[in-house]
Amino acid sequence: MSMRCEILSVGTELLLGNIANTDAQEISQALAELGINVYWHTVVGDNPARLKECAAIARERADLIITTGGLGPTYDDLTKNVLAEAFGKKLVFHEEEAEKIRSHYMNHTWNTSLAHSNLNQAWLPEGCRVLPNTCGTAPGCAFQEGGVTVIMLPGPPNECRAMFRLAAMPYLRQFSDVVLKSHNIRIFGMGESSVEDLLHNRMASMENPTLAPYVKTGEVMLRLTARAKDEAACEKLMVPVLKDVMEALGDLVYGVDVDSLEQLVVRLLRERGETVTGAESCTGGLFAKRITDVPGASAVFPGSFVTYCDREKARLLGVDTELLSRFGAVSAPVACQMARGARKSFGTDYAVGITGSAGPDPDERGTPVGTVYVAAASQEGTWVRQLHLGTDRERTRIVSSSHALDLLRRLIQGLDPAADRSEAL
Amino acid sequence: MSMRCEILSVGTELLLGNIANTDAQEISQALAELGINVYWHTVVGDNPARLKECAAIARERADLIITTGGLGPTYDDLTKNVLAEAFGKKLVFHEEEAEKIRSHYMNHTWNTSLAHSNLNQAWLPEGCRVLPNTCGTAPGCAFQEGGVTVIMLPGPPNECRAMFRLAAMPYLRQFSDVVLKSHNIRIFGMGESSVEDLLHNRMASMENPTLAPYVKTGEVMLRLTARAKDEAACEKLMVPVLKDVMEALGDLVYGVDVDSLEQLVVRLLRERGETVTGAESCTGGLFAKRITDVPGASAVFPGSFVTYCDREKARLLGVDTELLSRFGAVSAPVACQMARGARKSFGTDYAVGITGSAGPDPDERGTPVGTVYVAAASQEGTWVRQLHLGTDRERTRIVSSSHALDLLRRLIQGLDPAADRSEAL
Repeated sequence: MSMRCEILSVGTELLLGNIANTDAQEISQALAELGINVYWHTVVGDNPARLKECAAIARERADLIITTGGLGPTYDDLTKNVLAEAFGKKLVFHEEEAEKIRSHYMNHTWNTSLAHSNLNQAWLPEGCRVLPNTCGTAPGCAFQEGGVTVIMLPGPPNECRAMFRLAAMPYLRQFSDVVLKSHNIRIFGMGESSVEDLLHNRMASMENPTLAPYVKTGEVMLRLTARAKDEAACEKLMVPVLKDVMEALGDLVYGVDVDSLEQLVVRLLRERGETVTGAESCTGGLFAKRITDVPGASAVFPGSFVTYCDREKARLLGVDTELLSRFGAVSAPVACQMARGARKSFGTDYAVGITGSAGPDPDERGTPVGTVYVAAASQEGTWVRQLHLGTDRERTRIVSSSHALDLLRRLIQGLDPAADRSEAL
Repeated sequence: MSMRCEILSVGTELLLGNIANTDAQEISQALAELGINVYWHTVVGDNPARLKECAAIARERADLIITTGGLGPTYDDLTKNVLAEAFGKKLVFHEEEAEKIRSHYMNHTWNTSLAHSNLNQAWLPEGCRVLPNTCGTAPGCAFQEGGVTVIMLPGPPNECRAMFRLAAMPYLRQFSDVVLKSHNIRIFGMGESSVEDLLHNRMASMENPTLAPYVKTGEVMLRLTARAKDEAACEKLMVPVLKDVMEALGDLVYGVDVDSLEQLVVRLLRERGETVTGAESCTGGLFAKRITDVPGASAVFPGSFVTYCDREKARLLGVDTELLSRFGAVSAPVACQMARGARKSFGTDYAVGITGSAGPDPDERGTPVGTVYVAAASQEGTWVRQLHLGTDRERTRIVSSSHALDLLRRLIQGLDPAADRSEAL
């Protein structure tokens, strides 16, 4: 498949910078999975003359044009009118779509006069495929004319995403005799450049499947994508590469097709009927927040402490005041006592303790900003990591909580808790 | 000023959907403040032929072209070469820039051979204004040719933002004999459509200053922007509108030019030498995380509890088990006892209690998903809000923690704690 695609987004709110063009981003990601090349993104305002010019340019250079926005009554169906005209298509009235719009307005609003102006949405280019809108009223459409395929999607991101995934992607598959399948390989404990160095020769020479790195705060994801005649053939292509990557990275890979460290930890604990708690200082609740981001966390998490001062570390967790004054709150022994104190108080199988200096200023002992100790306690003992995370307060808090989750998953799975290469982060 | 601007972003990572085009969004926002109209955003890959075509189109239709990306050694200075050629400009060697690059690499890397290839960055269009890069090595530039102004900025968002704000905006002001000044009015407790309904007539008829609403989860921000010959004249234009908006919205406005509810709460407490804690169930640490997002929170926040099950609500907060079994954990009396229990335990001036059903499933008593009780306790007594926030788990958790912060700032400031119109959210 060697289609040249242009995404043409219509919306003055994009040109004013009120929102980022996430529609184009999401469609581009999905098209990459389909093996369709996106060569241009264009954004134009709700202006018929300028949209017409942009449509003419796109028609010249692209053989797949995907528009977003400018459908629906508030825009006077700008995009549909201009694009249909640009491709010499008449708009025809779709009684079936009209009926859907009428029934939507009967069910969802008290103002039935609205239904009438909304019926404009039932006029669609002749001979088009109607793309149903599962989240709103404006239908989308797809047609082919003069060697160019045109797909029109609504602007609101939830409507655009649903219509693209449910209706436009199946439509686009007709142009392809292959399927694509991906696996997401999640890595914690090694920086992007180290992962790339390690896999560079493999990645550079690979054509099918492909292996591409994506970065989020403190983590790396590798997306492995294969193209073949069916899913089974895709999987067969990926098996040796997956094996190869797992051998190279070992237990730095915390999961394949897992959403996040917190999702993995909650799942592991649920499977084992075990529980966790935490005592947080510099992360101030972020560890607990991430655990409880996962639906069903209540089965494994009874609650936790935020202890943001020495007094509460001593009172709630039983941290030794002599230890606090000797080593300071930002120290390995205090992190360990925090974890053990929380575990004892809540009676859980595991507990983490996080204490550090997130900044902006160093603490009164002069501990450098970005120094964090992360401990995890279990029946077997207590482990601690020392981290140096730099001066970005938000990043330090996120990465510290990720280390706590990584330490936990290693204890739960019986892996070496020390086997991280965080200095590369 | 009636410039027609095109933002031309260069980067294959945008066309692959790896990142959203936030550079274009941020520049567009800033240009709107300068009164410059953005008519097009274009994204093209790291491909000289296609970039050349896009530059030719932009030259035809725009009189201000701002490029982002494609500077720096990894891109072979694609954008600079192509744009200079499109406008018939030679590149000349800037010894001063070369010296900066050399000294950057001497100071920041051990690999001095890097410095050599990076010297390509010192070749810049003849007669251009050099725009310094305060966050990286690739300098930007600005020039005028044939009635068109061209500004080139680097792609990495932090470099792009800093160069635009510090160097490109001052350069653009030469085309303008006015200055712009804005105030951000922050609102909690009323939805966007209600704010718009309330202010619609005012907003529609206003030309200078302008008033535009922006939405973030559960909150509304109004940006008031005036244009005049100097800052004092801008302020003078804004005073009556600000007064008018404050009268219309009353204490739903929690601040002007404040960053967030949590920033306001921490500042108010610091000013008064007072303290706060919390007991969280459905928000699972998010309230504490937001408080500790604010640098300096340690002066007002000793720590807090996450109590994610009935047993811990009783044990740590002293919530009555009889009350828990009669009303359930998701109830007003339990929220109040949580707040009071946390306040007593930590000995703070204020405390919040948050309990609710964030979903995805209703609790065992059948409490509808999205039902949340938020309480705040002080020496004066305890107040509680009942919320119905729908089925979006993440949104419910964010908005619940915002209500806790709003309730707090009302107690601290002596405002009516009940005066919210959250049903409009």
